[in-house]
Amino acid sequence: MHTQGMLRENALSGKTIVVTGGGTGLGYSMSKYFLELGANVVITSRKVEVLQEAAQKLYSETNNANIAYFACDVRKYEEVEAMLAQSIERFGKVNGLVNNAAGNFISPTERLSAKAFDTVVDIVLKGTYYCTLAFGKYWIKEQIPASVLSIVTTYAWTGSGFVVPSACAKAGVLALTRSLAVEWARHKIRFNAIAPGPFPTPGAWERLFPPALAETDLGKKLSPEHRIPLGRVGEHQELANLAAYLMSDFSAYINGEVITIDGGEWIRGAGEFNDLVALPEQMWDFLEQMRKKG
Amino acid sequence: MHTQGMLRENALSGKTIVVTGGGTGLGYSMSKYFLELGANVVITSRKVEVLQEAAQKLYSETNNANIAYFACDVRKYEEVEAMLAQSIERFGKVNGLVNNAAGNFISPTERLSAKAFDTVVDIVLKGTYYCTLAFGKYWIKEQIPASVLSIVTTYAWTGSGFVVPSACAKAGVLALTRSLAVEWARHKIRFNAIAPGPFPTPGAWERLFPPALAETDLGKKLSPEHRIPLGRVGEHQELANLAAYLMSDFSAYINGEVITIDGGEWIRGAGEFNDLVALPEQMWDFLEQMRKKG
Amino acid sequence: MHTQGMLRENALSGKTIVVTGGGTGLGYSMSKYFLELGANVVITSRKVEVLQEAAQKLYSETNNANIAYFACDVRKYEEVEAMLAQSIERFGKVNGLVNNAAGNFISPTERLSAKAFDTVVDIVLKGTYYCTLAFGKYWIKEQIPASVLSIVTTYAWTGSGFVVPSACAKAGVLALTRSLAVEWARHKIRFNAIAPGPFPTPGAWERLFPPALAETDLGKKLSPEHRIPLGRVGEHQELANLAAYLMSDFSAYINGEVITIDGGEWIRGAGEFNDLVALPEQMWDFLEQMRKKG
Amino acid sequence: MHTQGMLRENALSGKTIVVTGGGTGLGYSMSKYFLELGANVVITSRKVEVLQEAAQKLYSETNNANIAYFACDVRKYEEVEAMLAQSIERFGKVNGLVNNAAGNFISPTERLSAKAFDTVVDIVLKGTYYCTLAFGKYWIKEQIPASVLSIVTTYAWTGSGFVVPSACAKAGVLALTRSLAVEWARHKIRFNAIAPGPFPTPGAWERLFPPALAETDLGKKLSPEHRIPLGRVGEHQELANLAAYLMSDFSAYINGEVITIDGGEWIRGAGEFNDLVALPEQMWDFLEQMRKKG
Repeated sequence: MHTQGMLRENALSGKTIVVTGGGTGLGYSMSKYFLELGANVVITSRKVEVLQEAAQKLYSETNNANIAYFACDVRKYEEVEAMLAQSIERFGKVNGLVNNAAGNFISPTERLSAKAFDTVVDIVLKGTYYCTLAFGKYWIKEQIPASVLSIVTTYAWTGSGFVVPSACAKAGVLALTRSLAVEWARHKIRFNAIAPGPFPTPGAWERLFPPALAETDLGKKLSPEHRIPLGRVGEHQELANLAAYLMSDFSAYINGEVITIDGGEWIRGAGEFNDLVALPEQMWDFLEQMRKKG
Repeated sequence: MHTQGMLRENALSGKTIVVTGGGTGLGYSMSKYFLELGANVVITSRKVEVLQEAAQKLYSETNNANIAYFACDVRKYEEVEAMLAQSIERFGKVNGLVNNAAGNFISPTERLSAKAFDTVVDIVLKGTYYCTLAFGKYWIKEQIPASVLSIVTTYAWTGSGFVVPSACAKAGVLALTRSLAVEWARHKIRFNAIAPGPFPTPGAWERLFPPALAETDLGKKLSPEHRIPLGRVGEHQELANLAAYLMSDFSAYINGEVITIDGGEWIRGAGEFNDLVALPEQMWDFLEQMRKKG
Repeated sequence: MHTQGMLRENALSGKTIVVTGGGTGLGYSMSKYFLELGANVVITSRKVEVLQEAAQKLYSETNNANIAYFACDVRKYEEVEAMLAQSIERFGKVNGLVNNAAGNFISPTERLSAKAFDTVVDIVLKGTYYCTLAFGKYWIKEQIPASVLSIVTTYAWTGSGFVVPSACAKAGVLALTRSLAVEWARHKIRFNAIAPGPFPTPGAWERLFPPALAETDLGKKLSPEHRIPLGRVGEHQELANLAAYLMSDFSAYINGEVITIDGGEWIRGAGEFNDLVALPEQMWDFLEQMRKKG
Repeated sequence: MHTQGMLRENALSGKTIVVTGGGTGLGYSMSKYFLELGANVVITSRKVEVLQEAAQKLYSETNNANIAYFACDVRKYEEVEAMLAQSIERFGKVNGLVNNAAGNFISPTERLSAKAFDTVVDIVLKGTYYCTLAFGKYWIKEQIPASVLSIVTTYAWTGSGFVVPSACAKAGVLALTRSLAVEWARHKIRFNAIAPGPFPTPGAWERLFPPALAETDLGKKLSPEHRIPLGRVGEHQELANLAAYLMSDFSAYINGEVITIDGGEWIRGAGEFNDLVALPEQMWDFLEQMRKKG
């Protein structure tokens, strides 16, 4: 059941939603479900060929023609403004934004140059506040109620080694979400975030975990079956269901919240004695007998 | 739209859900929506007359006859076991539990007796772990996949003066949720929580905020319009939508999570400069001019 | 250096501090350092012989005769009141409380009886709020400024499997700390907490991790060298230094805070990619080359 | 007592600590106490005249000649590298870094230009990771154990309206702290943070809260006496005590932690019912009588 759409029909009709990084991966999956639910959708990223192909596929899969694409490097404020103007021109108005575009690489931090660090922070954090600022100025000026959803990570609050630029940037996006949820509520703009665990998409996942790593002992130990209490990775539709709920008016009273959908992954690592899940029942029997003996 | 049910039809068919404190307030509203979505529902609380009346009303409102009620004081483990046995007998099995029963009163802590403090902790914390323990032993023994939802509060993690026994107890319930989400994932039992802001129900709300308080200046300052970014209290259906999502298989990958639905209330109180929402625009103009002058 | 006392001399003179569970383990170590810094100290626990021996040893180690002991089961409110009265009688007044008494056992939750669950919750949570309530009533009535320190755990906020009663109870203690830090600030009573990682003391540690477990492969994996970024367990003086700071007036502006002292243990587990610390440098070289090749 | 230094003499001897933004405000106060405790200190900021004057004053107040200053714009990586090289040349090595330099302004977010937003993020977040990266590469290469302390804010985790660029940037700094506390522990580099409440320094405070605002009704409501449970702002020595503890080896087992020193301010704002501190005792009497009557 979790691989099916969950919301009633037309749950997003009347919404025009811009999805950054919407041509691939989870951005694509969210866009697809938004279209199925009756939204107008704009996908944007740097590569126009990727967008064009994605838009065609989205149309053929959903039969919703209200899909548009505009190329935009979110690190450039004037490109963000242009993309917004194009979206408004195409659909009359925009009232939803999904900050999904991201960059990341896995590396010991001391191996990074300052410039490499900047690249991730610029895409993830600057890109997100550029979009949010441009869209917010427009919404406030035009008095349009709106909703913003940002895709973060669980290490936005715990931090994580080996993805430190991403951790810094995603933490900033989470703070943006919580801050503007309060400040811009008076302008009827809602802010929420999702922290997904592993939802592999061909490409992104392999770049983060190249086969050369995945096949080592460590790679196996890091695999979802071992790390995640529910023993599996997530399905894209599961995330799309949550995202559509948060972009719909059904979640009108959720504001300033980050929802984790990770099968229990982060909380599994955080709890001091959780590694005891590996202890066999016989050992528990034995320990229990010892305790009874005193 | 947010006052309508959001999930597709029959989203909960095949589920038998016990709702503690299910005869009144949010417990009633959740039970009603669960029934509408095709679940079997057992409501339980101490007062059999309240339960009986609620069950009849639930039936007449939903036309779903799979509603049962059994009186149970959740502070007594043997009553919890009996209530579980009755529920299994009635519906063949149980695979859902909503820990919703609660007690609370608003008072300076130094005015409380140790016994009064115990009363709240016993209902909220002991009641919750008694139910969870009894149901969990049954599910693990019978190898039944299941889902547990606990209703907590935002002060479960921030604490709050004047409701300290409730804060201690709800914090304990949240820890129970996060702990067992990991430990019992191998038994296919999922755990989540909801932290609601104000969802007034006649009775509970008045007991917490008697008119004598609500009509004072302070009472007005504490009123939802002033405290909550979105400027309103929640509608019961909004919480029921979220609860049904978390009890359904659509949320199968959400585990160990607490979702806040409070219009931004807690995060509004937490941010250091958030009280500046009260500053008028002219003052901002003035400050901006001053800054520009240096 | 970290095994030496850090505060200037007489940093605690004028303080009379009650330490629950003060006869053994970390409670003993804190009491000792408090005495060295010039405090009057009362140690309390259930077993009078343990207390008597500890008090004698504390006197001989610190040469501070202002050490007293009174037996008290913190689960019984009237015993708490009696212990407080005895302490006041002995030293004229009390102005510090360290909630340190605890109970715990490591077990799959489904193997616990409701009564076993209660035992831990009653010692840790009820014991803590009984002491806090009795002492607070006295301080507020007598208008005595005071400070309360509670020893919690990192799984007070993350939860943890296999120590679930302790997790529930410690979470409650943390909520008590944060709640009363605000509510009782007007009575000049400060509240803080410490969340220690592993600070082994003979006895307690072995009960939690019996040799039969410690020597398994899993036991080794769980050992501090593998789990804790700093690669070692804590020294008692390190915790005593932090506790003395929080009980002294030097920390007068810290209120409502929980300070973790665990070598980075919990944050190590929480961060999604932290397990990559095990990846050898050559693998990073290889991955870097692959990335450069595209 | 809280306005005096707390650590035993020479607690920081053998340490060479760079303090960014060390010429003014809290940076100055920390530098002064570090010098008193026997450290070598380098202060840095953009303005060489400010630094020169501060260095002279630090020398005359502490009589410790091991104070140096080097101008550096932390937003420029090559300037950071140069400043580090100068510091090493002056003192032989560096083994401590305090990321304290910051920028902020208080404004509704929609009034900010993208460029203004960037300015704060560049100083606070980029400046911090530039320093941390440059110093870390040096420490790892030279195998020097070290300690990093970053000054953040409580809204690093809660977010806050009206200081949104600062919130995003400080959240990023906190994530950096938690991430590298784990990743670089194997290189014996420790990371911690302090989240201070209001510690006014002439200049900074007035820029944030100009008298024109402070004297309004809202300004009074926002004043420390009303907002902060302990009813006062912090003294610089209180923060310096905590900072010196975290830079010393006495805190060797604290890693990846952020310590709040704010008199209970943030937790005061966060707790749902905390505003009831304003309710007079007679009203509580009245409410209690009503409850007793039922």
